[in-house]
Amino acid sequence: MQGALLALNEYWTQQGCLVAQPMNTEVGAGTLNPSTFLRVQGPEPWRVAYVEPSVRPDDSRYGKNPNRLQTHTQYQVVLKPEPGNAQELFLGSLRALGIDIAAHDVRFVEDNWASPALGAWGLGWEVWLDGLEITQFTYFQQAGGISLDPVSVEITYGMERILMALQGVGHFKDLLYAPGITYGEAFGQAEYEMSRYYLDDADIETQRTLFEAYATEARKMIDAGLPVPAYSYVLKCSHTFNVLDARGAVSTTERARSFARMRRLAHEVAELWAGRREELGHPLGTAAPDRPEAPRTVETEPVASADLVFEIGTEELPPAEVTRTAEAVRRALTEKLAATRLGHGEIDVVASPRRVVATVAAVGPREDDHEETVRGPRVSAAFDAEGRPTKAAEGFARSQGVDVDALGRVTVGGNEHVAVVRQVKGRPAVEVLSALLPEVVTELRAEKNMRWNAPRLAFSRPIRWLLALLGDEVVPVTVSTLVAGRTTRVHRNAERPVVEVPHASGYLDFLAEHGILADADRRRELVLEGAARLAEEVGGTVDTARHEGVVAEITNLVEWPTPILGSFDEKYLELPAEVLVTVMRKHQRYLPVQDSEGRPMPYFVAVANGSCDHDVVRRGNEAVLRARYEDAAFFWRADLETDPGAMKDKLRLLTFEERLGSMADRAERIASIASRLADAVGLDGEEQSTLERAASLVKFDLGSQMVTELSSLAGVMAGEYAARAGEGEAVARAVFETELPRSAGDALPETVPGVLLALADRFDLLAGLFAVGAEPTGSSDPFGLRRSALGVVNILRAHPEIAGLTVSRGLAIAAEHQPVEVGEQALDNASLFVGRRFEQLLLEAGHPVHDVRAVLPLGDAPVRAERRLAELAGLRGDSRFADLLAAVQRVRRIVPAGVAAEYRPDLFENPAEHALDEALVKARRLHREQPTLAGFSAGSAALVGAVNRFFDEVLVMAEDPRIRANRLGLLASVKGLTDGLLDWEALG
Amino acid sequence: MQGALLALNEYWTQQGCLVAQPMNTEVGAGTLNPSTFLRVQGPEPWRVAYVEPSVRPDDSRYGKNPNRLQTHTQYQVVLKPEPGNAQELFLGSLRALGIDIAAHDVRFVEDNWASPALGAWGLGWEVWLDGLEITQFTYFQQAGGISLDPVSVEITYGMERILMALQGVGHFKDLLYAPGITYGEAFGQAEYEMSRYYLDDADIETQRTLFEAYATEARKMIDAGLPVPAYSYVLKCSHTFNVLDARGAVSTTERARSFARMRRLAHEVAELWAGRREELGHPLGTAAPDRPEAPRTVETEPVASADLVFEIGTEELPPAEVTRTAEAVRRALTEKLAATRLGHGEIDVVASPRRVVATVAAVGPREDDHEETVRGPRVSAAFDAEGRPTKAAEGFARSQGVDVDALGRVTVGGNEHVAVVRQVKGRPAVEVLSALLPEVVTELRAEKNMRWNAPRLAFSRPIRWLLALLGDEVVPVTVSTLVAGRTTRVHRNAERPVVEVPHASGYLDFLAEHGILADADRRRELVLEGAARLAEEVGGTVDTARHEGVVAEITNLVEWPTPILGSFDEKYLELPAEVLVTVMRKHQRYLPVQDSEGRPMPYFVAVANGSCDHDVVRRGNEAVLRARYEDAAFFWRADLETDPGAMKDKLRLLTFEERLGSMADRAERIASIASRLADAVGLDGEEQSTLERAASLVKFDLGSQMVTELSSLAGVMAGEYAARAGEGEAVARAVFETELPRSAGDALPETVPGVLLALADRFDLLAGLFAVGAEPTGSSDPFGLRRSALGVVNILRAHPEIAGLTVSRGLAIAAEHQPVEVGEQALDNASLFVGRRFEQLLLEAGHPVHDVRAVLPLGDAPVRAERRLAELAGLRGDSRFADLLAAVQRVRRIVPAGVAAEYRPDLFENPAEHALDEALVKARRLHREQPTLAGFSAGSAALVGAVNRFFDEVLVMAEDPRIRANRLGLLASVKGLTDGLLDWEALG
Repeated sequence: MQGALLALNEYWTQQGCLVAQPMNTEVGAGTLNPSTFLRVQGPEPWRVAYVEPSVRPDDSRYGKNPNRLQTHTQYQVVLKPEPGNAQELFLGSLRALGIDIAAHDVRFVEDNWASPALGAWGLGWEVWLDGLEITQFTYFQQAGGISLDPVSVEITYGMERILMALQGVGHFKDLLYAPGITYGEAFGQAEYEMSRYYLDDADIETQRTLFEAYATEARKMIDAGLPVPAYSYVLKCSHTFNVLDARGAVSTTERARSFARMRRLAHEVAELWAGRREELGHPLGTAAPDRPEAPRTVETEPVASADLVFEIGTEELPPAEVTRTAEAVRRALTEKLAATRLGHGEIDVVASPRRVVATVAAVGPREDDHEETVRGPRVSAAFDAEGRPTKAAEGFARSQGVDVDALGRVTVGGNEHVAVVRQVKGRPAVEVLSALLPEVVTELRAEKNMRWNAPRLAFSRPIRWLLALLGDEVVPVTVSTLVAGRTTRVHRNAERPVVEVPHASGYLDFLAEHGILADADRRRELVLEGAARLAEEVGGTVDTARHEGVVAEITNLVEWPTPILGSFDEKYLELPAEVLVTVMRKHQRYLPVQDSEGRPMPYFVAVANGSCDHDVVRRGNEAVLRARYEDAAFFWRADLETDPGAMKDKLRLLTFEERLGSMADRAERIASIASRLADAVGLDGEEQSTLERAASLVKFDLGSQMVTELSSLAGVMAGEYAARAGEGEAVARAVFETELPRSAGDALPETVPGVLLALADRFDLLAGLFAVGAEPTGSSDPFGLRRSALGVVNILRAHPEIAGLTVSRGLAIAAEHQPVEVGEQALDNASLFVGRRFEQLLLEAGHPVHDVRAVLPLGDAPVRAERRLAELAGLRGDSRFADLLAAVQRVRRIVPAGVAAEYRPDLFENPAEHALDEALVKARRLHREQPTLAGFSAGSAALVGAVNRFFDEVLVMAEDPRIRANRLGLLASVKGLTDGLLDWEALG
Repeated sequence: MQGALLALNEYWTQQGCLVAQPMNTEVGAGTLNPSTFLRVQGPEPWRVAYVEPSVRPDDSRYGKNPNRLQTHTQYQVVLKPEPGNAQELFLGSLRALGIDIAAHDVRFVEDNWASPALGAWGLGWEVWLDGLEITQFTYFQQAGGISLDPVSVEITYGMERILMALQGVGHFKDLLYAPGITYGEAFGQAEYEMSRYYLDDADIETQRTLFEAYATEARKMIDAGLPVPAYSYVLKCSHTFNVLDARGAVSTTERARSFARMRRLAHEVAELWAGRREELGHPLGTAAPDRPEAPRTVETEPVASADLVFEIGTEELPPAEVTRTAEAVRRALTEKLAATRLGHGEIDVVASPRRVVATVAAVGPREDDHEETVRGPRVSAAFDAEGRPTKAAEGFARSQGVDVDALGRVTVGGNEHVAVVRQVKGRPAVEVLSALLPEVVTELRAEKNMRWNAPRLAFSRPIRWLLALLGDEVVPVTVSTLVAGRTTRVHRNAERPVVEVPHASGYLDFLAEHGILADADRRRELVLEGAARLAEEVGGTVDTARHEGVVAEITNLVEWPTPILGSFDEKYLELPAEVLVTVMRKHQRYLPVQDSEGRPMPYFVAVANGSCDHDVVRRGNEAVLRARYEDAAFFWRADLETDPGAMKDKLRLLTFEERLGSMADRAERIASIASRLADAVGLDGEEQSTLERAASLVKFDLGSQMVTELSSLAGVMAGEYAARAGEGEAVARAVFETELPRSAGDALPETVPGVLLALADRFDLLAGLFAVGAEPTGSSDPFGLRRSALGVVNILRAHPEIAGLTVSRGLAIAAEHQPVEVGEQALDNASLFVGRRFEQLLLEAGHPVHDVRAVLPLGDAPVRAERRLAELAGLRGDSRFADLLAAVQRVRRIVPAGVAAEYRPDLFENPAEHALDEALVKARRLHREQPTLAGFSAGSAALVGAVNRFFDEVLVMAEDPRIRANRLGLLASVKGLTDGLLDWEALG
């Protein structure tokens, strides 16, 4: 270990880094060291490397977990400005550590970094060594909320992981730290004790006092204009916050508030620091931006058609961006070429993580020549009465560089203008492309963009090279600091990582010969084929459909998929399948192998990039998975030793929301609310007792270690643990179902107790958080209220048997159980919020917007609203309904708001009034008997007729106010009858 | 800089050290890192090296001072157990840093290290490189109040200093930190800002809150049995304490209390840690102690007399121990040889820092043979009535291994015993010496002793080798792990640092040939001679008498004094001479050169050890002194810009003692007390106004930077600054004199205002601290009360003109000004305390103890007491006085305590009573006229006669109680007359 640190110090010193010391206050990461956080600010160049023992209280495991330590050793490098070859420098450092990068599978896997507490973020990667995350690699974009210029690159090595891989040991304690002494011998006791401290013993009140004192002192130092001491107190705040968090003493609101406070402090510190550096005249100088080379001049002019290849070489793009970018380049190229007169064949664009390759077949040697007409003033203005050219004509001729006599005429929009018509010679293809291709590059944008040391460019990851060949000639293309050439880059561990490309034709094959499959479809095939073949070797299959997301990701994570079969110890099969799969998928992007009945087998398929030593890579990946499973098994076993009741007790320590109490309080409320909802629904005896038992357990798995670690398993673990604790299947099912649906498209609860608990959960969340004003704003929805609202709607939609339960009723019940007063306004807002999700859901399902709006008033009972929507769809084109609609709308338009649905037949003066009265009575009966829109519409002819007759024969606005009022009352009664059916106006 | 750190890492890694990381909380020194503090506990071996940025808030100088930084870089090495050659390993590391140790003057200068806050101490050295302290080298004896076994050695490099010397730069900011970047560029801003923070801006209340929170948390973790987190909070306490201290917010009591609290915590942490390591079964194993080699056997037996040389080789002894140890060895050797029958010539013992050399001339080849008589039982018990040997006789004969018939007889104390008489053959010299010399070594003790990796030995510094030659033969001597041989060690930078000694004769010359002067007298000569010669070269002199302390020290700091003349910039002569000299003497052990009028010249004499490159060493020493003077000049200039009033204002921030207020309060009290004392003494107008002005300034220099830094200059700076601020000479003198005497033997105040202020200062200190119960206990006297009490006595002795001012009067006045109530008991105790110092002073001056005790009742006015003492001395042998004494003692013995000195002549029954009455009346008159003891004694014959007659003729214990009471009253009156003269009983 210490040898490795010395080797890194030596290597990075050679790269011009200053070797700094770890921060002398606890920090969670090397990034927090002022040598990074402050130094990335401003224009001064800076290269630094240092060891940073990084303290993460949350990772405390008493030293039992093989990979997780409360203090792990980071090695941190910052290069400012980013030098353009930081990835290569990094690979050099792995070689310095003795890692054979040709044998191993080294990959740059998208991982964007953000520290909300510090207002900092950047784009970059986790670097994987045979599936093991060994390094974080980030292009710093902001720190302290300030955009950085120049951009720095930050490389953070996880030393324990790297060395465990190098030394081939399974537990950090077995690492050789120094000759003759292991990590465990040197630091095992501290690891245990600090874990105890962070998880069990740190005094919460004391930590709160410290947080407050630190924040106050930081503020005071900012006011005194001293960023350095201020920053050290910001760091102390941050660590203290982490301790409180590890002790489970931070509520969501408290977290948000603390983050905001730290972010504000960090921002002011950064600003202050930058200002101070400027006052000091930037003692370290100013980083000069790279200067682009002069573009090469064109020397020959092609005379024949030729293929074009244009490659945009990048650092590893996020998988989703690979596909997006290929499409974007295709579109841009097509449009831009269309705007020229250059003849060309098919345009094809493919992409891999490191390149977008556009090929255009048979590009003509030059644009077609054509005539260009430039319109001048109208003829009437161009010549005076005597037919002499006016000043306007002269000016136009001059501006076009022709004699006034040479002006021709064109007719535009019926008006005759003077004009110049000239023959335009088409530009050579090279010239056209030289102008066009740079635009393709500068216009590239991704979902999330970064800047690097290339002015005016912004993209998902840095663009590092351009290849532009037309036939066998380089097309001169210059963009920012980039100049296109005839070389491309292949695998970094290739013997010659940069190769010269002879000509454009057959470029994809050329790449394939160098181990690069630029075409995603071909890569995908290799993945599917390989996975199937390898799974078959052990008598299993890979459910690629189920794991489509992983397949898609893998396809765009490598330039040549090399599927490798790995196995794991069967003992881990004791873990629930969901756990096994979640770990593989989420952390490792492995494809799980299953048997013919869909049960997990102890195998997986990992997909490496290009050529490598399969045994080495397999062993590496197996070790990683073993560690992950060891982690999970550790939680699993620990949890199984704890009964659900004891787990549930821990909920008392988890603050849910300051004003809404702990998670335990929330679980209690869910139980009570579910019981009230049951009253509204009516359960049989068995359902009742299941509900009661499940309600008493609800959310208990939040107190389990597994869920603390893998929160996406909430509910799943509840079911597993409940079943294993001897609860009946029904109870286990209900506690599982309480969490459903967990995301859009997820399964919904099926059993009645499950449904009620799931609803209670969401009603509680909505009522409580709307009451305390914590509704989502903009894109921020920390409590997932949008998801919850949608869950309510979907559950209700799926369960017509409880249609009597409306959203507003559920919210009202939940409101009664809140520890805070829930105002009417809050309840209305919550209902409205749910309604909006429902509306959006219906629209996304393709229903016409008018129909959706029309049924929305019924949305409080989504089942009803949807039924009505179906009826509405059925009535589209129905003439009777159209008549009804027209009649009803006519009625509704004339009746002012607030008119009571009352009338006295004795005041009728016209038979049409009597007729309408009769029709109304019949329609009412009909509506009672056929309470559907379709039925109502089918039987509405009489009513429609009566309404129309009424309007024909009766003057509503009679002079006698009593008569007038009576007629309006009659119409209001018609309106009233239709009120609950639809929002008729919406259909207008 | 970073190159040097890498080089050290590499070097110490090769020596088997684990390279650890700096502590991730602020620490004041590498020692505090748990890698040292905790690891030195218990039996586990441990070798570690690490960089430790050490934070000393008190050293903050805004980055302006060339040598002082709030954070400096320590490089720390711990070797456990101490390997026996740590000094040599250390010198190897200097070579690894590229230092030519043959050219430079590298010295190990006594410096014992203690951290009261951590209950830790050790003995060792500062290592000097050409006068620059570059490293602290300590044999750790205790940590956390626990004695360490095995002992560790701790080496702490001051990296900035080392590198400034190596790079030859004068300011730390100019150090090259990494290629192309200076220390100032990299860390200048942080240095400034953290200085601002520590000195000016840290919020005192917040820091107090933090201290409390940390201490509480440490305690809690100790109770939870978690030493590691507990320790981290102890460290946080310690740093916070240092911040408070730098902000001037720590009073003496608070300091003591905080230290006690931290010490207790550190102790419990250490104990807990050691216990935990034991429970864990000492994961790193147990250090095995060195095993001594078997002693060599004697092979030949000398037949002629030979010289003996016995050398005890040590690591560098403290100068005072060099002399002490030579003397102790001489005494031990003399006594031990005397107890043998070995003939020998002169015994001579000399010593240098690294060796004690004992030579014994002409040691006989063997002890003289002699007769030994062993006495058995009395003859009467040895033979029965029949003359047959009893069991007793038989037993005795058996025990002596002779036949009962062979028993002889001896007469002891008039009793005849059986006895065995045998001829004892003297042992060979080698055998005698082999037994005797080890005792000399094991019995060695110094003032302060340490243990090292040699069982059963304890001494000032480790003993590393023994040389024992009798003639040309090795005397077999084994002590602990040491075995004497025939080699000695000379200078460590010699070509051959270990040399073989051919024979004992002429050993001192042999050493001299190798550049070692073992004889202190010869070294001293070289020092004096060299200093005089070098000073003369520049027309100056060295006042060696005045600097005798330094001369004595230097003499024992080197093995071959090499005086070198250095100079400094004349600009520093602007500094007061006292400052120049204090800095040289205290920090550097240089001899200052002065001109014929005693004024400082810009030269000094440094004394290097042995051969070296004089230019290199001169330059080095000059640079060190320049830095020291730069430091002092910085304070001087800063202070001169502040007027005394403003300085005095700072006293408000210096807490003196919690209950007794700030230093400002104390200064105010001193002013008031002095004014009251003045009333008691009576001043003329000028004295009065001087006193008033001086009183208003008193102690203002405690607010100066110079005194804050060099506290021994308190008073001196007051005088200097007052004079320069335009105060008159008398006022300047008075504020200076207020601090006199600063130590035993120091000058006393001479002017009346000075005397009164000095007394007021001390009375205030005594009255206040006795009132709050802060009197000295054991060896702890944090406020220097013993020195103050002695000061009071000496000032009063020196100023008979104010003899009316007694100690108790002064204390009573001071008591009235205290902010707390000063009880009578407290005042009595304070008086008694002063009296004790006076008593001790008189005894140390050689006065007979009886005389001293006899005059002590007068000690409240020391002048009077001393006069009486002189009289007593004069009366020794005077028969009249002897008669008087006898008579007075007779009277005093018979009069019971409490008898009133009253009698009625009308109750006299005997003429002797009348005679005594008359003699008494005359004696009273005489005493009034001649108020001296001598006078009283001279005229006492009549009284003595009357007393004796009274006792001869009168029965004091008459039967009539009235008569008896009257006679006792008469005698009581005699007693009363003599009461105030002496404590007569003491003369008994």
